[in-house]
Amino acid sequence: MKASVFIGTSLDGFIARENGDLDWLPKPSGSEDYGYEEFAATVDAIVMGRNTYEKVLTFGEWPYPKKPLIVLSHAPLTIPAQLTSVETMSGSPAEIVSRLSKRGLKHLYIDGGKTIQGFLETGLINELTITRVPVLIGRGIPLFGPLQQDVLLRHIETRQFSDGLVQSRYVVVR
Amino acid sequence: MKASVFIGTSLDGFIARENGDLDWLPKPSGSEDYGYEEFAATVDAIVMGRNTYEKVLTFGEWPYPKKPLIVLSHAPLTIPAQLTSVETMSGSPAEIVSRLSKRGLKHLYIDGGKTIQGFLETGLINELTITRVPVLIGRGIPLFGPLQQDVLLRHIETRQFSDGLVQSRYVVVR
Repeated sequence: MKASVFIGTSLDGFIARENGDLDWLPKPSGSEDYGYEEFAATVDAIVMGRNTYEKVLTFGEWPYPKKPLIVLSHAPLTIPAQLTSVETMSGSPAEIVSRLSKRGLKHLYIDGGKTIQGFLETGLINELTITRVPVLIGRGIPLFGPLQQDVLLRHIETRQFSDGLVQSRYVVVR
Repeated sequence: MKASVFIGTSLDGFIARENGDLDWLPKPSGSEDYGYEEFAATVDAIVMGRNTYEKVLTFGEWPYPKKPLIVLSHAPLTIPAQLTSVETMSGSPAEIVSRLSKRGLKHLYIDGGKTIQGFLETGLINELTITRVPVLIGRGIPLFGPLQQDVLLRHIETRQFSDGLVQSRYVVVR
C-alpha cells in the first residue's frame, strides 16, 4: 500500500488557522490547480480524521476526488447527499492500512493534521507533496508534530508557481 | 536599514534540536556553500541572541563572516581571541536598528530563533532565505513563532541542490 500526502501550508508550517480557516490560501483561479487533479487521479481512497471531515463539509463544495472516503471516527457521521461513498473506521494507522489493503486498494490519500502525523509516526507515509504559500500566519494547526525518531526524506522535485507558491515533493526514506 | 535572515531548517521548521544540536544538517562539503559566502559578503554586521552566540562558540569554528557582531544580552560575554569585533547590546529590535543605523550600517544579518522572531514581529526583517533540509526532526527550536498579524511575503526565487536541499528567498511585503 502506498500512502501520500498532498497539502498546502503557510511558510510557518500551518495547514489551517486554529479555527480551521483557510482564508490565507490563494483564491482558486480557473486554470492553476498546482497538480492536484493529476495527483487525485492516482489515489484509490481518501483517509482523514473527523475534524477535517467536519470542517471540509462547511466549505459548501467538496474539494476531494469522488473516490471512497474513510473518516477515522468512532461516532456516526452526517453524510451529505452528494457524498456517495463515505464510511467511518477506527483503529491504528497500521490497522486501517491493513483493512484497506485487503480490499485491493493500492494508493491512499492521507489528509488532516492529526491523521498525517499518526501515519508518519508509524512509518506509513510514502510520499509528501507540500505546497508553501508565501505568508506567515503565526499560529494554527501544524502539518507536522513530535516524532519518536527522525524521518529522512529524499527530495524528488520542486516547482515554483507564478503566484509565489513553491511545491516540493519528497519520498520517505525507510 | 535592510535586515536579512539566511538560515537552514528541517522540513518541519526547526533551526536546531531542543539542545541546540545541528547534527541533522548535511556535513559541509568542500564546494557547495548554498550561497552563504555571497550573502555574507553583502552584510555589514551580524545580530544574534545570547543563546545562539553561546551555542555557536561550542562549534570550535566560527561560521559567520568576519564582520561586527552584536550579541543581544544584558550580561558581559566571554569573547574568544579570534573574534575581533563583538559587543553586547540590549533594547527592542527598533532600538537596535536605530543605533546601528546611526553608525552608518546598511545591512544586518539577523540570526537565532528568538531574535529573528522579535525582528519579524516588529516588521524589521526585509528578506528571508530559508534552506530546507529533507528531514523531519519532530521537535526543536522553531524558526518562526506567534505573530500579532499575518506577514505577507513575496517569493523571489527557489533553488534546488543535488543533495536535496531546497532554498527559497522571500521579501517581506509591507
